[in-house]
Amino acid sequence: MSVRLEKLQGLLDEPLLVTNPVNVFYLTGFKSSNPALLVDTERVQLFTDFRYASAARDIAGVEFVEAKRDLLGDLASRLSGRIGFESAYVSYAGWEKLRSNGLELVPRPGHVESLRAVKDEDELASLRRACAITDRVYERLAEERFVGRTERDLAWTMTQLFHAEGGAAISFELLVASGPNSAKPHARAGDRKIGRGETVVIDAGCVVDGYASDYTRTFATGTLPDDLRDAYAVVAEAQQAALARIRAGLSGVEADGLARDVVERTPFAGLFGHGLGHGLGIEVHEAPRLSPESGDTLVPGNVVTVEPGIYIPGRGGIRIEDDVVVTEGGIENLTHLRKDVVEVG
Amino acid sequence: MSVRLEKLQGLLDEPLLVTNPVNVFYLTGFKSSNPALLVDTERVQLFTDFRYASAARDIAGVEFVEAKRDLLGDLASRLSGRIGFESAYVSYAGWEKLRSNGLELVPRPGHVESLRAVKDEDELASLRRACAITDRVYERLAEERFVGRTERDLAWTMTQLFHAEGGAAISFELLVASGPNSAKPHARAGDRKIGRGETVVIDAGCVVDGYASDYTRTFATGTLPDDLRDAYAVVAEAQQAALARIRAGLSGVEADGLARDVVERTPFAGLFGHGLGHGLGIEVHEAPRLSPESGDTLVPGNVVTVEPGIYIPGRGGIRIEDDVVVTEGGIENLTHLRKDVVEVG
Repeated sequence: MSVRLEKLQGLLDEPLLVTNPVNVFYLTGFKSSNPALLVDTERVQLFTDFRYASAARDIAGVEFVEAKRDLLGDLASRLSGRIGFESAYVSYAGWEKLRSNGLELVPRPGHVESLRAVKDEDELASLRRACAITDRVYERLAEERFVGRTERDLAWTMTQLFHAEGGAAISFELLVASGPNSAKPHARAGDRKIGRGETVVIDAGCVVDGYASDYTRTFATGTLPDDLRDAYAVVAEAQQAALARIRAGLSGVEADGLARDVVERTPFAGLFGHGLGHGLGIEVHEAPRLSPESGDTLVPGNVVTVEPGIYIPGRGGIRIEDDVVVTEGGIENLTHLRKDVVEVG
Repeated sequence: MSVRLEKLQGLLDEPLLVTNPVNVFYLTGFKSSNPALLVDTERVQLFTDFRYASAARDIAGVEFVEAKRDLLGDLASRLSGRIGFESAYVSYAGWEKLRSNGLELVPRPGHVESLRAVKDEDELASLRRACAITDRVYERLAEERFVGRTERDLAWTMTQLFHAEGGAAISFELLVASGPNSAKPHARAGDRKIGRGETVVIDAGCVVDGYASDYTRTFATGTLPDDLRDAYAVVAEAQQAALARIRAGLSGVEADGLARDVVERTPFAGLFGHGLGHGLGIEVHEAPRLSPESGDTLVPGNVVTVEPGIYIPGRGGIRIEDDVVVTEGGIENLTHLRKDVVEVG
């Protein structure tokens, strides 16, 4: 029985049916698109269909039960009594199916997610490796020519660099946004040719042992116009203010405020159009959130992004993003890249 | 107003709240991780948060409303009366939030999915382009050396070929399964070195204009042992039987049976361990399904995979997969690759 499963058992008022595949992977290491883990204090049963049966048999402390491909329908007829379910994951239609045979279902959102928010040493080791690869990729990227190439072409170069540096898979569709596109926080790499004197926002990461890194750096293709140069300095200062003071005990709102206050005191007030950061682990976005709307409080072992930005419509944008571990007294920064403006050709 | 939106309006008994981002993209071309489209007979409103506001403003026939990032919470306070919702997509917790302010919610699963199952000419054009690229990639792959390389290395080569042939993104994590691994239908590319006289199952595809191809071919690294050679011939025959007779009007169960009956008459009975195929479009798995459990009936404009397989535990597996359009009298095969055993070095 894994320590993670034991911790989960300690949280439960009734057996919990874990059906989010990411949560099943976290608890057991088992990967499937169609799993259900019934966690009780006495026993843990893993249900999945024949396609995953051979892998499901070998998990220590877990009893495998081969189920139909219509997993929820099958569980509705097998289970009885009072059972918690992952209500933030199970669809309304899935809930209707599960309860069709009289099962008493208790919505229990976020149990496994709350465990996942605090990383153990194995998880931190994977994240450190993912970040070390990402560091090297960004360093090699800075040696590339930018001007005259399309965003899409540069994105492909970066994909190749991730492969060259450890064969790591990309953790999300990597963003390359240049010139006016960089003023849109969610622009994708397109056919725009990168020009001179622009900002190029690059947001990318890789997966090691199932754990994702997520960095952003903003490159300058030669000397930037004054407004963008000033905005870069403000973003760097805002990030530094957050990195210097984030620690366990702060709320997600307070952490966000550390950086936001810096931006709001400048002519760029109002242009930091997203939260300061988010948890990182098996998923690229998980608990806790650092933002003005966050309900979370930081605890040791959280791994979060710290990514202030300024976006000037029609002109350009700047974002600088590190991945950090929250500790009792501060942070361990997993990102070891320079923060000043990197000029590229 | 798009034809797709008009068709949807014709299906509705009450306004429908579309929150599955894939369905919103299908109906409007708008891409976001946090959209909601309220489709009424008189008007269509698109709700999303500030991050996507600039893109959301420009959609013809659709009224944009900037909403909070907590979209369902925001909608609960804005909307009133009786509204259909996508119950196969919205989580139970999302449903609880949506109805918290008295909204009367009617579960309406599958409305948009049923439209998506029938492709229009624009969609078919994208799928034809995706398949043309995939054809060329498989042809070039057959010129590569297989023996002595790892599955992972070959997967990377294929990723590079997709990029070289049109810059298309991979539509799913491509599978390369060799030797005994190929007997597992869902094996991922790993560190196993490919040997001689083995089957290598390769399952891959790419995305063009948001539409995905999905092919499988099974290569032979030199002469195969008798059982695998025989199994290959049976799979090829089973696929041919299905391709020759699939047409509109057949049920998903009947289509599956065309291929399954061929396998079941051989010593490989019981080793075709998955359904014959699935719909293909914006998602790699969508309606309709071709399988013994399918509840679907084929209609003209469906695009489906046809992918029989035989998996001999510990020995190896064979799968051959084409992408086809269902027509009134038969199919249009979008895959133009040879079906006989391709020997590679």
